[in-house]
Amino acid sequence: MNRIFSQLTSVSCVATRFLSPSASAAIKVTPPDLSQRFSKKRRHKRSDWLRVMATPEIEAQLAPYRLAVKEYGDKIRALKEQGAAKAEIAPLVVELKARKKRLEDKELELAPVDEGFQRERLEDLLKRRFFYTQSFEIYGGVTGLYDFGPMGCSMKKNMLDLWRRHFVLEEKMLEVECTALTPEPVLKASGHVERFADWMVKDVVKGDCHRADHLIKDFCEKQLQDTKTSEEVRAGLTDVLAKLEGFDDKDMWSVIQKYNIKSPTTGNDLTEPVAFNMMFASQIGPTGDVKAFLRPETAQGIFVNFKRLLEFNQGKLPFAAAQIGSGFRNEISPRQGLIRVREFTMCEIEHFVDPTQKDYPKFHKVKDVELMLLSACNQMDGKGAEKMSVGNAVSSGIINNETLGYYMARTHLYLMRIGIDPQKLRFRQHLANEMAHYAKDCWDAECLTSYGWIECVGNADRSCFDLEQHTKATKVKLVAEKKLSEPKMVNIVEAMPNKAALGKAYKAEAKKIYTALEDLTTEQVEELKKTVSSGGSYNLKVKGLDKPVELTSALVSVKRHEKKVHVEEIVPSVIEPSFGIGRVMYAALEHSFRMREGDEKRTFLALKPIVAPINCTLLPISSNARLEPIVARVEEELSKNEISYKLDDSSGSIGRRYARTDEIGIPFGITVDFESEAEPQSVTLRHAESMKQIRLEISELADLVKKLSNETISWADAQAKYPAFETKESE
Amino acid sequence: MNRIFSQLTSVSCVATRFLSPSASAAIKVTPPDLSQRFSKKRRHKRSDWLRVMATPEIEAQLAPYRLAVKEYGDKIRALKEQGAAKAEIAPLVVELKARKKRLEDKELELAPVDEGFQRERLEDLLKRRFFYTQSFEIYGGVTGLYDFGPMGCSMKKNMLDLWRRHFVLEEKMLEVECTALTPEPVLKASGHVERFADWMVKDVVKGDCHRADHLIKDFCEKQLQDTKTSEEVRAGLTDVLAKLEGFDDKDMWSVIQKYNIKSPTTGNDLTEPVAFNMMFASQIGPTGDVKAFLRPETAQGIFVNFKRLLEFNQGKLPFAAAQIGSGFRNEISPRQGLIRVREFTMCEIEHFVDPTQKDYPKFHKVKDVELMLLSACNQMDGKGAEKMSVGNAVSSGIINNETLGYYMARTHLYLMRIGIDPQKLRFRQHLANEMAHYAKDCWDAECLTSYGWIECVGNADRSCFDLEQHTKATKVKLVAEKKLSEPKMVNIVEAMPNKAALGKAYKAEAKKIYTALEDLTTEQVEELKKTVSSGGSYNLKVKGLDKPVELTSALVSVKRHEKKVHVEEIVPSVIEPSFGIGRVMYAALEHSFRMREGDEKRTFLALKPIVAPINCTLLPISSNARLEPIVARVEEELSKNEISYKLDDSSGSIGRRYARTDEIGIPFGITVDFESEAEPQSVTLRHAESMKQIRLEISELADLVKKLSNETISWADAQAKYPAFETKESE
Repeated sequence: MNRIFSQLTSVSCVATRFLSPSASAAIKVTPPDLSQRFSKKRRHKRSDWLRVMATPEIEAQLAPYRLAVKEYGDKIRALKEQGAAKAEIAPLVVELKARKKRLEDKELELAPVDEGFQRERLEDLLKRRFFYTQSFEIYGGVTGLYDFGPMGCSMKKNMLDLWRRHFVLEEKMLEVECTALTPEPVLKASGHVERFADWMVKDVVKGDCHRADHLIKDFCEKQLQDTKTSEEVRAGLTDVLAKLEGFDDKDMWSVIQKYNIKSPTTGNDLTEPVAFNMMFASQIGPTGDVKAFLRPETAQGIFVNFKRLLEFNQGKLPFAAAQIGSGFRNEISPRQGLIRVREFTMCEIEHFVDPTQKDYPKFHKVKDVELMLLSACNQMDGKGAEKMSVGNAVSSGIINNETLGYYMARTHLYLMRIGIDPQKLRFRQHLANEMAHYAKDCWDAECLTSYGWIECVGNADRSCFDLEQHTKATKVKLVAEKKLSEPKMVNIVEAMPNKAALGKAYKAEAKKIYTALEDLTTEQVEELKKTVSSGGSYNLKVKGLDKPVELTSALVSVKRHEKKVHVEEIVPSVIEPSFGIGRVMYAALEHSFRMREGDEKRTFLALKPIVAPINCTLLPISSNARLEPIVARVEEELSKNEISYKLDDSSGSIGRRYARTDEIGIPFGITVDFESEAEPQSVTLRHAESMKQIRLEISELADLVKKLSNETISWADAQAKYPAFETKESE
Repeated sequence: MNRIFSQLTSVSCVATRFLSPSASAAIKVTPPDLSQRFSKKRRHKRSDWLRVMATPEIEAQLAPYRLAVKEYGDKIRALKEQGAAKAEIAPLVVELKARKKRLEDKELELAPVDEGFQRERLEDLLKRRFFYTQSFEIYGGVTGLYDFGPMGCSMKKNMLDLWRRHFVLEEKMLEVECTALTPEPVLKASGHVERFADWMVKDVVKGDCHRADHLIKDFCEKQLQDTKTSEEVRAGLTDVLAKLEGFDDKDMWSVIQKYNIKSPTTGNDLTEPVAFNMMFASQIGPTGDVKAFLRPETAQGIFVNFKRLLEFNQGKLPFAAAQIGSGFRNEISPRQGLIRVREFTMCEIEHFVDPTQKDYPKFHKVKDVELMLLSACNQMDGKGAEKMSVGNAVSSGIINNETLGYYMARTHLYLMRIGIDPQKLRFRQHLANEMAHYAKDCWDAECLTSYGWIECVGNADRSCFDLEQHTKATKVKLVAEKKLSEPKMVNIVEAMPNKAALGKAYKAEAKKIYTALEDLTTEQVEELKKTVSSGGSYNLKVKGLDKPVELTSALVSVKRHEKKVHVEEIVPSVIEPSFGIGRVMYAALEHSFRMREGDEKRTFLALKPIVAPINCTLLPISSNARLEPIVARVEEELSKNEISYKLDDSSGSIGRRYARTDEIGIPFGITVDFESEAEPQSVTLRHAESMKQIRLEISELADLVKKLSNETISWADAQAKYPAFETKESE
């Protein structure tokens, strides 16, 4: 009965952390027929779809789906108000999610899509021009591993540079760089060793492995496409698809048995689902004693360094630490390009704050930023996302606190700067039962791509869970001191060692005993007192000693006294924005992919100058030697100003060469022509996205391109300042 | 007899690649008594030692050591001229190296050291102010793993940014980012699976592991320190220490037996040395079938992407690819702080070039750069390093070619910019037998630190070894096309499939057979012809088919014809500069560590502004509220210009606060005082290294600090432009 909750605590409470590899992520992956739809021509741009969706015709079609969701949302709310048990609510939640999924599928079905967006064409471009490629391609490739080529590497670097300026520098965060190799005890404490797993089934003959939820999903979709499938079976399969997200091992096993699902590759029988831990295991040192994993996230490196970071910050809260680095997840069978990979770059922030003071001094700076919020409440009501200022969302309690709201707004602003389409971005709040039990609030920034809505950034208030876990595991207190508004008197109970006696008996080891006594909790001291005062002996565990030390009243006494304290120890709460840079990058690439009006063959990437892999192209209009000294002069100007450029002096027509540079998202093109020779020497500067050109002197060129690339000025500013240059782009 | 060479090919030909973890690295580690010496006060600065060493007194002491080296250098050269077998030369090389080591130890012994340099003090500072710390410290730490804190992380980032500008942008290199997870076949081809190993001995009872050469070294040094050790034993131990670098497993085992060496921790017997592969192993995917390792270097990722990179470069040679990323080496028992770690950042360049054209177009730009070269020849002669322009070194053949020389000069310039002391840098050439058999030339940039001379950058001409190895393993030709100066006629022998017959017999698989036929070498086609024309059948291996295909004259014929070709295929040579950023950073930190004249307690880091972790400190002279708006104005100016700063408004005296910022290498300090209020508002700017101050208007401040931080202007320039401000730094 308690399946859904047991699954949520046994798998998802860890796994639903960012880039959730658990079954819960599956909901965001739309069925294959959807991606197919994107490849067909449609009359409207999909980027307008959220606006278009508001038409009464579409709303009328969606109304019954919305109502169906709300029905269950209301039922669950009512039960909660009555204080019903989790076990009673659980089945209703499964049904609620199924209804939500049907609503979302319908919404996507009704939404007009981009005219002619074809994922294969974008992917072909990205591989052909070496944004990225499958790793170890000449060895046959490894699924889920990708190498970035010069274009992808440069774009990613620009995104990371901006991330650093936007977050680390702006908020004076403490950036750290921790190792990927992580010893087992750390990941036991964080919960990953036990719970960071997916359900897997095996071919009983061949031993091939399949991710259970993916296998079931593929099976259902295939059967639904088969016209011979009966209406009754069809209904059952649709129901499975809708509820699959919440399934645990037993649910999935009963589906596999009911539909007699076999291995898709061999037709052999399958085993019951078993949990497969997704961390890559290794060993440190030669003996094999030190078991280790590659970190599945960078966050733990920050938590274990909390003490040093707090000290670095002179003991003061709040402060934020940040880390950019690789994470590793051994996906069972990754299949979605850059969306689901086994080695990836994360940017994580852990903002440590007094749990009772989550206001944010700079919140006023972002309070008017408008976010597209898909709140838990709206999800329960079957409503869509709503635009709302972050100030209102916090003051009305939709977003839990200012700090979380601040980071959501800053996340939004960052995503806008690197080129995410605002029409294809929403913040989706986790439902209460999607969140780990300790989490206070959680919002995923999701981007709409041809894979459906994909989670790109998690923003979570994780309360004090992580620090407490590591404290439990290490006995090192990860706390901050908080000044009390006024001093207070507290009762202190201390175990006082008889140092003379213990020193004599334990020599150098005695110090360890003193430390162990200091570390006893109040309850333990009370117990010790009870034991020794009744003539018994108390077994004290001492770090560094093999056996516990037996303490009698001759060796230890208990002292009670009152003490005036000015500070109290608190375990800080953690607000965690966590970016999957590869996913953000892929979404930005999809959102920038365009084709020229009237020429479908001519695609281009309208990348923001600040993330574009190369600042500009330099194109001499002819190979005539007269132009060479001018080209050399421009090259020198660009190099001197650290502007990256690509010289294209190949023999193609200027139109063809423009098309080639547009294709890879180089935002500006400098053309040296025969007019350039006249003093003062001049060139044209072309804006790839609009194909407009201006003419300016070479002496002013580097400064202008630098500013355009930094986005300190816009193309419109440049057009206002310099005369337009008219030309026809012929092939 | 052939031990040294077999060891060099079985271990070192891979392991002597950069950051050599093989025994060969041991020579650069000076014995412990040396590091002790650095902690004592000496009259002279060690930075002057190379100059001072030239004094006749010191040279007189070194003369017999130099002569001893030369004796064996000459012997070896003579044998080589006579064409003697390697086996005959090998024992002489062992002795040569032993003599070289004695010379180098003597040199270091005689060299005056930095006044009062104390490694413990530097290390204490670096940990206390969180440049770095041992990873997972609260879990007891893991040896060989370090986390960078805010200071270290920022300094490293600045070093990497500069590296990118200095190399990647300047030379228009193709930067890539490949995965750390690497499947086994790739590292089999590169030789790492078989040969990337150290010799290890185990405690026969407890199973504890020790690196054999380190164990022997420690044993010998301990015995030598024992006054009871006899003169005879002493001589033997000294000889072992000198020759240890060249020892293989058998040599080390005989030493262990001869001196009855036991486990240093338990006193138990030890096993014979066994090879321990230093790669971290893991598995990709759930079945355990795909064995993988964490890459021990980033280079292989570039090699396997060679085809795409060449295509990206429009098929043209030469070009360079670069990669910045993590490398992993499972050291047996790392003990030297940041010098020998298990996870580290590398910056590697692979420059692909026509083997017959290793000149470099921009070589003239660096030809006058002077390098301190310790050539193989000088090493054989017992001479020290000599200063020489890279132009002369290439033209005289000391450095093999212009491209290698160019990168050495650029490496030198980079190291100067990030703060390596030129007096503590040398390029040491590998002796012929230190290099892998395929390498043409190899120079390590070594920095002198309290650990001795440590290898920080490798510069190697690796010929075409790597590309050939991956071609062998994958059958994918990793070649470039080279235009012939004039077209030539070549004889072509082709195996022509009978497509009708093969198509009928093999259906869709026939295409695979055609491809296999195209891939046959000329020799294989000749053999096929011989077989089928004599009525036999030729077994053709076909990729993708389980069994070989039996070809008879009915299925295949051989065609001979002449063809005019304009290009030929060549396997490019690879020139590889490879930076261990952690080592370079540590050396730069040691070289920047200073103490104030007359105040030994007051240490500081004279870091170059371009790598300093924080650009400047902002210090209000008092907490008086009148200064607050001025401080706020300065903060805004700095933020707007993306200048990183640390606000120190704590209550300490200004002198104490200066000391605190100097300690962590913040190069500039802005002080807001009561004079600042007068319009136009002004502040003082203090240069940490010289403690000199100037006064300037706030409106000019950000621009000046930006330029000083970028090093586009120097502190001397700033002093020339603005009036000096005199003050006394009181504690």
